[in-house]
Amino acid sequence: MSDFPKSELNTVRRLPKRGHYDRDVIYPIVDEALICHVGFSIDGQPFVMPTIHTRINDTIYLHGAIANRMLNHINNGNSVCINVTHLDGIVFARSVFHHSMNYRSAVLFGKGRVVETYEERWRVFEALTEHIAKGRWNDARHPNETEDKTTKIVAVEIESASAKIRTGPVGDEEEDYVLPVWAGVLPLNVKAGEPEADSRLSEKTVVPDYIKNYRRTP
Amino acid sequence: MSDFPKSELNTVRRLPKRGHYDRDVIYPIVDEALICHVGFSIDGQPFVMPTIHTRINDTIYLHGAIANRMLNHINNGNSVCINVTHLDGIVFARSVFHHSMNYRSAVLFGKGRVVETYEERWRVFEALTEHIAKGRWNDARHPNETEDKTTKIVAVEIESASAKIRTGPVGDEEEDYVLPVWAGVLPLNVKAGEPEADSRLSEKTVVPDYIKNYRRTP
Repeated sequence: MSDFPKSELNTVRRLPKRGHYDRDVIYPIVDEALICHVGFSIDGQPFVMPTIHTRINDTIYLHGAIANRMLNHINNGNSVCINVTHLDGIVFARSVFHHSMNYRSAVLFGKGRVVETYEERWRVFEALTEHIAKGRWNDARHPNETEDKTTKIVAVEIESASAKIRTGPVGDEEEDYVLPVWAGVLPLNVKAGEPEADSRLSEKTVVPDYIKNYRRTP
Repeated sequence: MSDFPKSELNTVRRLPKRGHYDRDVIYPIVDEALICHVGFSIDGQPFVMPTIHTRINDTIYLHGAIANRMLNHINNGNSVCINVTHLDGIVFARSVFHHSMNYRSAVLFGKGRVVETYEERWRVFEALTEHIAKGRWNDARHPNETEDKTTKIVAVEIESASAKIRTGPVGDEEEDYVLPVWAGVLPLNVKAGEPEADSRLSEKTVVPDYIKNYRRTP
């Protein structure tokens, strides 16, 4: 894929060597996350709301109830900033100052757009469901007319984006390496537990593989 | 503790029964999270940035490099919105429409304030370190003069806040319960892996208990 041009908006200024502008780096971070954090501003008041998202090419789709304030604001073509962050580990340094985290973070900038056609809406219903778990769209009952009518879907066209990534070990001051302080990385992972079947589920209904072996990463 | 008054800013409008305004509910959500998402707006352009935080009473503290744009904006007394969200599980319903997530989310609204005294700065260094892992402040080398000078710390006074929480099982339409679709909750947890000792660590240096048994929740 191709790079987003560096601009005032997306340039990583702190520790620029951690910055990435390639869609091939940014989009897997976005897709791995079940939810994103959406930032918007109404009359100068900033808001940040968590919500599930899905991505098709350079478009992020969000959904919710028809009266949802955030979605209506985005639908009106306003600017939004979307952040997705994965914490991969805590970096314990010998000094307080050099404590850090291993992370992969993506920040997307764009404007809202109305989703007008039924075809696009339906594609988004499918993409959102598949974003939760690949294979789910085939299994679950699809939206009926009432459900369709009460769901708002909005698009955010990604105009600018970047990722910031830290990996690797501790970086301490040379004179601190002799200190008798444990230093290293503590990995963090999001793990799925045992699926808890609904109490009204027939015993014949087996757990699908995409739930039994649930993973966000490929 | 006491409730935040409900206002235009913090009232949970979608599914109001999931809304909470009590500090006793909101603050444990904030404290459990290693990082938060900070929303701010510069000349109408919204930004969302992830960063580590720590809380002392009704104040959130953030830190970073002296030239950090977000911190300087907050330091100037501007409004910010801070969101913290824990994903506790995916709710797989028989219908696409009733898919959901179990989550605990806190949203905080406030304004930035300069941290003026050396005493407050030092309290924040300690609180930030203890926020990473309780016990770490005693073990790691404390900031020296240069590190102190190159670190910006800003305070956000929490003026308004709320939490939104979903727990419990699937809620399907009555007529869907007969469908042969697996339904239930898939729990999600953040788990710490095996600590990876730094390659220059002396073999005599043992892993502290707060790292070996790392947990965000008490």
